[in-house]
Amino acid sequence: MRHLLSAADLDRDAAVALLDTAEEMAVTQSREIRKLPTLRGRTVVNLFFEDSTRTRISFEAAAKRLSADVINFAAKGSSVSKGESLKDTAQTLQAMGADAVVIRHSASGAPHRLAHSGWIDVPVVNAGDGTHQHPTQALLDAYTVRRHLAADDDGDSRGRDLSGLRVVVVGDVLHSRVARSNVDLLTTLGAQVTLVAPPTLVPVGAHAWPADVEYDLDAALATGPDAVMMLRVQRERMSSSGGGFFPSPQEYHRRYGLTGARLARLPEHAIVMHPGPMNRGLEISAEAADSPRSTIVEQVANGVSVRMAVLYHLLAGAPAATTQGASA
Amino acid sequence: MRHLLSAADLDRDAAVALLDTAEEMAVTQSREIRKLPTLRGRTVVNLFFEDSTRTRISFEAAAKRLSADVINFAAKGSSVSKGESLKDTAQTLQAMGADAVVIRHSASGAPHRLAHSGWIDVPVVNAGDGTHQHPTQALLDAYTVRRHLAADDDGDSRGRDLSGLRVVVVGDVLHSRVARSNVDLLTTLGAQVTLVAPPTLVPVGAHAWPADVEYDLDAALATGPDAVMMLRVQRERMSSSGGGFFPSPQEYHRRYGLTGARLARLPEHAIVMHPGPMNRGLEISAEAADSPRSTIVEQVANGVSVRMAVLYHLLAGAPAATTQGASA
Amino acid sequence: MRHLLSAADLDRDAAVALLDTAEEMAVTQSREIRKLPTLRGRTVVNLFFEDSTRTRISFEAAAKRLSADVINFAAKGSSVSKGESLKDTAQTLQAMGADAVVIRHSASGAPHRLAHSGWIDVPVVNAGDGTHQHPTQALLDAYTVRRHLAADDDGDSRGRDLSGLRVVVVGDVLHSRVARSNVDLLTTLGAQVTLVAPPTLVPVGAHAWPADVEYDLDAALATGPDAVMMLRVQRERMSSSGGGFFPSPQEYHRRYGLTGARLARLPEHAIVMHPGPMNRGLEISAEAADSPRSTIVEQVANGVSVRMAVLYHLLAGAPAATTQGASA
Repeated sequence: MRHLLSAADLDRDAAVALLDTAEEMAVTQSREIRKLPTLRGRTVVNLFFEDSTRTRISFEAAAKRLSADVINFAAKGSSVSKGESLKDTAQTLQAMGADAVVIRHSASGAPHRLAHSGWIDVPVVNAGDGTHQHPTQALLDAYTVRRHLAADDDGDSRGRDLSGLRVVVVGDVLHSRVARSNVDLLTTLGAQVTLVAPPTLVPVGAHAWPADVEYDLDAALATGPDAVMMLRVQRERMSSSGGGFFPSPQEYHRRYGLTGARLARLPEHAIVMHPGPMNRGLEISAEAADSPRSTIVEQVANGVSVRMAVLYHLLAGAPAATTQGASA
Repeated sequence: MRHLLSAADLDRDAAVALLDTAEEMAVTQSREIRKLPTLRGRTVVNLFFEDSTRTRISFEAAAKRLSADVINFAAKGSSVSKGESLKDTAQTLQAMGADAVVIRHSASGAPHRLAHSGWIDVPVVNAGDGTHQHPTQALLDAYTVRRHLAADDDGDSRGRDLSGLRVVVVGDVLHSRVARSNVDLLTTLGAQVTLVAPPTLVPVGAHAWPADVEYDLDAALATGPDAVMMLRVQRERMSSSGGGFFPSPQEYHRRYGLTGARLARLPEHAIVMHPGPMNRGLEISAEAADSPRSTIVEQVANGVSVRMAVLYHLLAGAPAATTQGASA
Repeated sequence: MRHLLSAADLDRDAAVALLDTAEEMAVTQSREIRKLPTLRGRTVVNLFFEDSTRTRISFEAAAKRLSADVINFAAKGSSVSKGESLKDTAQTLQAMGADAVVIRHSASGAPHRLAHSGWIDVPVVNAGDGTHQHPTQALLDAYTVRRHLAADDDGDSRGRDLSGLRVVVVGDVLHSRVARSNVDLLTTLGAQVTLVAPPTLVPVGAHAWPADVEYDLDAALATGPDAVMMLRVQRERMSSSGGGFFPSPQEYHRRYGLTGARLARLPEHAIVMHPGPMNRGLEISAEAADSPRSTIVEQVANGVSVRMAVLYHLLAGAPAATTQGASA
């Protein structure tokens, strides 16, 4: 693995290997080792063109636990806002000694461009691009499903995939890179995915995806899924009158929210997931968010383990980058 | 000590113990040891809902000198501004591996809520909440008073309290968490406190506090205090005409400012304190701020020692937090 | 060397010594040592009153590779915006344990004031002040010229200066601290400098500088310089109509831009430099920026080596600062 740009780039074995490494990282974390010397002397740059404190901190925590140095580069207030190109920014960061670039960008495809343009020659990790992909989110979600629903009696799930499991993904699929990434990775790992959304929020091409599409949440839940993943609603996309493209908040919650009543109808073993941050009372009720079957806080912890695994796979084998121009 | 939420929570022995540890921290710092390995592998999160570069950097420096990792989480530009609740933010931070949360919030009581709601189970340090409390400021002030006025001939003040000392606190007591915290801690340590303020800036309940209230600064200084602590004036609260709630700047300086003339009338041994940042020419003259009896710069240094002591007491004995959800 | 405030403060031997140290730093970096323990336990503060992500990150990377702790202090959102003086800010930072202050300020002379006012007693590094100086930029430029044009057959340029080399500096000299600093340092090192600018963008006193002034770029390039350094244009200074002080962007590019045609007329060995970030298509064409003779990305890498050398010279010999007020 040279970069991590899309969940669709991972085949079953590559995905299982990453999840296995993440599981081993989690074990070292739980044993209070906390700091592994693996990436000492390496520098990970968080190049964030969009604000995302959660994702940035998660990558920062993952890198620091592997003993890497972290440099946070927020595009706002930087030369980028003065019109510097992505190319020049990236070359600058590599010249300063970046060994890997974690990029978040509002433009779909920016990480791919960064990785394959020949501008830089260090690993690139996509931390979310436009409405396209968010592969580490998909990995942490798959990790969470596997830990809960595919582990053996000793709690070990290494080597396993998600064959036979059924996951329902609910919400604004149209704008969601989380949904896209999860469909790719969950199906690669053998799970069966059902997307549930209002008709206006289903992408035109979604019927060609390897997932079922359903408009009625109650019908989807009645099939007894193993996991229900609620997507975050972007409030700014909602019509307050409910007359447009998007239902009103009340209408949305009534038809697509995970209410207490819906929660009660889930199978005993089913888990409730959300990528965070939640809109309590909108896509998810407080009752569901705080219920024992919610894995929402755990997903955050798993995000650190999964990102440690990704950085490890991309960097631990490779030689340290030399500062460009530094050698004679 | 499980959390540090209010100066009022500390009894005499707990306060003396913290000040003693701070004194030992200061000694290691002066001996160029600088970096203690005590908290290696631990992560301290600075969760700041209000800007405060000084306090944030002081906690950051304290944590780093104990070899902890520090993650700064500014609420602006984060999910918090998208409506995420304090509960979800806190759980997210703990899930990412926070071993302690240092919180600053404009709402009085937010740190208490964070610590006692059951949302998270790591130590919480109040770095200033609304007009309520700022306990590490009170500790660094008490530390500064003790070093100057209660040390033995070898400069050692460990084990001592502030019995018999008199401190005058001057300014906008109504809005000051610094004043509240100092009244609590200084009196716990045996000092006698006099509050001096314009009548409009004395809280209604202040007459029930364990402190004298006085409206005339010159009368208070004539009693020969051991320390004079000037509070910062929030300029935005001042009426430029002087017709309102607050005197005009000129009037304020004339009646409540520490002028050169007032400085000259203080006892030989008395010290001049200010929590910073100062409004020179308003609550304090440059002459007083820069005089040899000013401890203002020293208070900043003592802030680092005191915060090292607090983090040490909260974290050094406790086992490292395990990443939530990481274990099987 | 106690501070680094201006390129004009360096004599030939001091400059050569700094460049030699930078060359040794670069060698350690290329050998994958990456992290030198030299400044372990020391704290470098980046005190930035102007946004400059590139320069800030370069100093941060340099300090971290020497194992120093770094505290970034952006004036925005800090007490400085509440009216705190530079003096109080500086004293606060030193009291918190800063061992060196790297300062960027919009006011020419601010670093000099900080260093020589007696406010603090730690080394001060000027990271750019107003239109005045940017000495580490001049050092990295001199370093780049020396590596390319003054090295022996083994690629070693230690001990050498720039005697006999000719450098053309092109653009808005009037507002450029980069131009000023380079004229000082390049001539100190024995190079001959020609400034090329529209007549309105030449400072009044420039004819007294140790450099030639020329208004015609083609004439200057026809003399066969060894290096051409393009200055960044501040777009906000440009008149869109071209009727004012500054030519229009099209006119500027035509008369003062490094076009492909001009690039082709340079001597075989000549290098093309730019401090970044570039305005491609304005002061420099993409063809020139990306040509094999461009050293622009390399300059960024050299910036880290040079800043490591500066921090090393200022701090490695000196004893660690003790926290002020910490000792008895």
